[in-house]
Order: sequence, then C-alpha cells, then structure tokens
Amino acid sequence: MPQSKRESEKKYIDPIPTTDIILRKFTDSEQILIERRGRFPFEDKYALPGGHVDYGETVEEAALRELKEECGVKARLISILGVYSDPKRDPRGQRITTVFIGDYTVGEVEAKDDAKSAKWIDLGALLKLKEEIAFDHYRILSDYRKWLGGPKSGNTFWSTKKS
Amino acid sequence: MPQSKRESEKKYIDPIPTTDIILRKFTDSEQILIERRGRFPFEDKYALPGGHVDYGETVEEAALRELKEECGVKARLISILGVYSDPKRDPRGQRITTVFIGDYTVGEVEAKDDAKSAKWIDLGALLKLKEEIAFDHYRILSDYRKWLGGPKSGNTFWSTKKS
Repeated sequence: MPQSKRESEKKYIDPIPTTDIILRKFTDSEQILIERRGRFPFEDKYALPGGHVDYGETVEEAALRELKEECGVKARLISILGVYSDPKRDPRGQRITTVFIGDYTVGEVEAKDDAKSAKWIDLGALLKLKEEIAFDHYRILSDYRKWLGGPKSGNTFWSTKKS
Repeated sequence: MPQSKRESEKKYIDPIPTTDIILRKFTDSEQILIERRGRFPFEDKYALPGGHVDYGETVEEAALRELKEECGVKARLISILGVYSDPKRDPRGQRITTVFIGDYTVGEVEAKDDAKSAKWIDLGALLKLKEEIAFDHYRILSDYRKWLGGPKSGNTFWSTKKS
C-alpha cells in the first residue's frame, strides 16, 4: 500500500479547529448573544459563544454544544458566515474557526463554563464596544453586518479577504 | 493568570484542518478541475485539488498553495461553499475541510504531488462518475450544484445539513 505523507500524524503540528456562533433573536430589533469571557485569553472581554471542536464531532455539533454549555440556549443553524484562520488571531496558537449564523430557539440565557456572563445586545451597540471585543470577533461581527447587506456585499468571509 | 483548559495542547487529540477547491473555468460551458489521486486514500479516484493546512498559513493560502502544487494553476477565490467535518469522511482520521469556490486565472494544468493526473471536466459529466469520486467530494459537488441555483437553495453547506 502506498505511504501517505501524513501517515505518522505525530510528525506534524496542525492548526486546531474551533467554532463560534452568531446567535440572533428577533424582537423589536435584532439582538445578538454575547458573553464575557471568564478565562484566559481575553478574560473579561466580550466574545461570541464558541470553542474547540472535539475529535469525533462535526463543527456544527460543536457550535451547538458550546452554545448550550456556555450560555444554556439552543439554536437552529442558518448559514456559515466564514472561516477565520489568521495564525495570530489566538495567542494560544493557531485556531481555525468556522463561524455559524444561528437563530435562537429555546432556553434561558445562563452563563457557564468559559462564560462569566452572557446577554442579548443590539448589533449596533455591540459594534461600538470594539476595544472590548475578544479575538477577531469585532472583524467577524463587522463581516456579519456586511452579510446582512446581501449577496452584493459577499456571502462568505475569511481572514485575508479584502473588504 | 487563570489556567486555560487547553494550556497543555498535548492532552488533546484534535480533528485536522484541510481545504479543497472547486476551480471553475468558463469556456463554452463551465468546466471544473479534477485530479486523479496518486496516493492512499482513494488512490486512482477523482478528487478536488486540496490538502492539509500548514501551521502558520491561512486556509485560503493553503487552498491556493495545494492547487499550485498539485495542478500547476492559480485562482481567484470567490466564496466558501461549506465546511465538511463528518468524522468518517477520511479513513486517516477526522479531517475538517473548508471548501472554496475559485475561478481559474493562469497556469497550464500539470499534475504533481498528490495528483496522478488532472483535467477540466463539465460538472454534469463529473457528477455522473459518482462511484469514481474520492472522500465526500461527490456530496460537495452536489452541494455546489445547489449553490449555483442561488440563495434559495442555501448559500453554505456542512456535513449534516439537510438538503
């Protein structure tokens, strides 16, 4: 049998897959679920719910699991906003995050695990807190605002995409 | 400083990030670049150009690098079709692939590296070769056909998404 160049996985260091979710709830206006991080890195900064993809689960399962673990709520996945993989986006080492857009379905918001607190906030109000937002989540939320503008603004995004 | 639960990376086995590209060329009809794999797994089957994301590069850089290495051509990235992460999609272990859609720009097609051969083929003709297509690339190409149908068919895709 031909040898795979990846046959010995241990020889390689790979970027680590993560996932995040932009969770929306529609009342008078569109609200986004944001948490305050309770841990390094970016402790006390605002972040989208998310985390590492466990071996054996899909990215979409991981997004829903982390949302439930950190904020206590469930969602219906709508779309993938983009994949962000800038090697410098996480100080722990390269993480490649698949960002989903989801609609809130059920559950009371309750911060747990990585989240110190969690709340619903207007997208506009959230974007005014730029300096308080963890990782590249400000960029991600800005791309989401473009996504809301429709296909003319582009449907999907990545770290080096020109705006 | 608070401890990260990921502080010791070695304690975890993570899925491995990969990327693939649906490269289009428009002549009389739309043509897709397909290669025949020269290595395990799925040796001799048809596959999209793609491969592992190296530590320190973005997924989009990896997609363009693999395309150049395997097929000798360059592309302009258009969009992300989806992220496929079914744990069983690769017999070597879980791979999470970000699939880009790209338009051909320059270069003569020349198979190298993982590719035994490479050629342009009509999407319709390619989809008739279902049993000859590696990994979940038949599913990916079927989702691409839906993507061509526009937003009503959904803009992005993932392994467990219902069609």
